Amino acid sequence: MNTDALPSPSAVVDAFIAAWNRGDLTAVVNLLAQDVVYHNVPMDPIMGRPAVAAYLTEAGPFRDVDWTVVHQASHGTIVLNERVDRFTKNGKPISLPVMGRFDVRDGQIYVWRDYFDLTSYRAQFGE
Amino acid sequence: MNTDALPSPSAVVDAFIAAWNRGDLTAVVNLLAQDVVYHNVPMDPIMGRPAVAAYLTEAGPFRDVDWTVVHQASHGTIVLNERVDRFTKNGKPISLPVMGRFDVRDGQIYVWRDYFDLTSYRAQFGE
Repeated sequence: MNTDALPSPSAVVDAFIAAWNRGDLTAVVNLLAQDVVYHNVPMDPIMGRPAVAAYLTEAGPFRDVDWTVVHQASHGTIVLNERVDRFTKNGKPISLPVMGRFDVRDGQIYVWRDYFDLTSYRAQFGE
Repeated sequence: MNTDALPSPSAVVDAFIAAWNRGDLTAVVNLLAQDVVYHNVPMDPIMGRPAVAAYLTEAGPFRDVDWTVVHQASHGTIVLNERVDRFTKNGKPISLPVMGRFDVRDGQIYVWRDYFDLTSYRAQFGE
């Protein structure tokens, strides 16, 4: 593989967030490696692209997605960011302060770990 | 001020974590700016070094402190890290996965924002 042609880890995360913000779940999933581990830290990790795709489909649909990256920094193949993830779900506007850690390999994300307060998140749904 | 002599933002955060790990709360507080904003994101921010010092004193005492930095990356004056903060409080061993964002100015931290799941944290105390 010609790794010279691959986007930087930070650019891969930028593309991932841009895909979310266009509401393009197919592009989101295509930026995940087959062996991805997706871990919302308060919950159990989800292993593998098919399982993550199924989870994201079931968890949604997410409308009016607007993830704002407050800060992002990378170190080798690791990208860390601080974000505010905004979207609408079941008609409710959600705004979630979150930090994420991404590991990138061959232009795809193989670890995606988000840190946030689950109670604050669920309260916005009235749960 | 001769800013050439100042440690890098990442080195300031390293020193801050080293101070925690020695249990040296005085050194911890001395690495905070007078106008620091300390925000555990699920809770209200605490403004100013005296208020933060009072909070940290009241929240503790923290024993056997061992904060492990999993990853850290900086971008300008901003430092982002992923950590596991371990300590003992009231005889209970606590292990908290957290991500933090630090802003550094003149060798001191003036924004410290930690993202974690408050329920997971409190559950470890039996709250």
